Amino acid sequence: MLLKDNEVIDDLQRDGLKIIQNKDAFKFGIDAVLLSDFSKAKKNDVVFDFGTGTGIIPILLSAKTQAGKIIGIEIQSEMSELAKRSVTYNALDDLIQIYNMDIKNVVKQFGKAYADVIVCNPPYFPSNGAIKNPNESKSISRHEIKVNIDEICQAAGQLLKPNGNIYLIHRPYRMSDVIYALKKNNLEPKELRLISPNINKAPNLFLFRANKGGRPELKFLDPLYVYDLEGNYTKEIFDIYNASQIDVFDKRGV
Amino acid sequence: MLLKDNEVIDDLQRDGLKIIQNKDAFKFGIDAVLLSDFSKAKKNDVVFDFGTGTGIIPILLSAKTQAGKIIGIEIQSEMSELAKRSVTYNALDDLIQIYNMDIKNVVKQFGKAYADVIVCNPPYFPSNGAIKNPNESKSISRHEIKVNIDEICQAAGQLLKPNGNIYLIHRPYRMSDVIYALKKNNLEPKELRLISPNINKAPNLFLFRANKGGRPELKFLDPLYVYDLEGNYTKEIFDIYNASQIDVFDKRGV
Repeated sequence: MLLKDNEVIDDLQRDGLKIIQNKDAFKFGIDAVLLSDFSKAKKNDVVFDFGTGTGIIPILLSAKTQAGKIIGIEIQSEMSELAKRSVTYNALDDLIQIYNMDIKNVVKQFGKAYADVIVCNPPYFPSNGAIKNPNESKSISRHEIKVNIDEICQAAGQLLKPNGNIYLIHRPYRMSDVIYALKKNNLEPKELRLISPNINKAPNLFLFRANKGGRPELKFLDPLYVYDLEGNYTKEIFDIYNASQIDVFDKRGV
Repeated sequence: MLLKDNEVIDDLQRDGLKIIQNKDAFKFGIDAVLLSDFSKAKKNDVVFDFGTGTGIIPILLSAKTQAGKIIGIEIQSEMSELAKRSVTYNALDDLIQIYNMDIKNVVKQFGKAYADVIVCNPPYFPSNGAIKNPNESKSISRHEIKVNIDEICQAAGQLLKPNGNIYLIHRPYRMSDVIYALKKNNLEPKELRLISPNINKAPNLFLFRANKGGRPELKFLDPLYVYDLEGNYTKEIFDIYNASQIDVFDKRGV
């Protein structure tokens, strides 16, 4: 029996890929899709996804890159078990490995300078910040309870090969913390893309590429707008998604 | 004789204020005007301008704030002497003091926790970066030859009182360096305003307010556009300047 209680299979409308999600747990959002689109990997690269949740990012990256190995790290055992079933259901076990592991232990497990690329959609909120979700699993996905941005960047700084890239999505109000944590760990922010609901609204998400050992120079990419002024998705969002697939996603955050 | 060779007096079109500039040296630009507009000081505040150049920022702040004392720091002796003459010409000697001094020596001179507000329009370019201006005075104003952003933030972090603010303008491609230098010195970035030539162009300047000892939380303010799509100044720029006065300014950077 593939599905447990409260679980559903959603069709990603891309290469026939599917994802298992639990209706009561953290469902992946537009942020994971935008981050997957933004992230780049070369042929045969070793790619990590820190905090993989449902496994959505490894599964989407399997379709758009020629990475040689994609490793999803997830601290919550039930979530990682669900991600593993999605990988198997998509017949991606040869490419994607899911580890039920604390991000802080990846260097011990894999050694330094092992990864070409790291992707991370981290918990956005400080653990002492906004009201925590009464649902413990969602809290861990959203708040820095088990890991914070400093610890993520410390692990990434050691796990990445020289000149490797980390791709992150985060909230603008945390941007200083993110930049500080990156630079402290020799990860130089190179590209910044601000994401706004529409052209009249302030950004509420941003995408970052940071480079291990890179020269300090930050490039502002064109901003990304999710909606036009009539409230419809912009063409770029339609291109990133498949139009028919948009309703699958949790719309928190946009 | 007030003016030396190559010097001109420009009318700031605000409260009758004037400024002396040397045609061959660094003339103040739109950045100084935008930074002065962005900076806030309360009644009787002690305000510093790090790298005051012509003295434009202290002179503009004399008109828009009720600061009790405004101190301009300038390492170039000829430039500081010119700024002093502008202060005297405007009869502002009781309010504005110009020191011919290295920013790195301000704490030794004034002591820790002396300033309520610091304003700084620093050299934008690394000393080993873009081609240096053959004119030495302009080079010092534009490149981190005599002082870099780390040293500025170190001095500011010590000179500011707890909860004091520093207002900065800089180039987006240096934003990571600026944030890192601020946070390392307990100056927390609180407000960011991106400045673009127009709504279709990437930002080429940004304004920052950072707070001594503040809680990490960065607010993105509405972006500032200098020109409309017809190439005319936007209403906001006209409001910040006086329309008649716009041609006084060096248009480098926008």
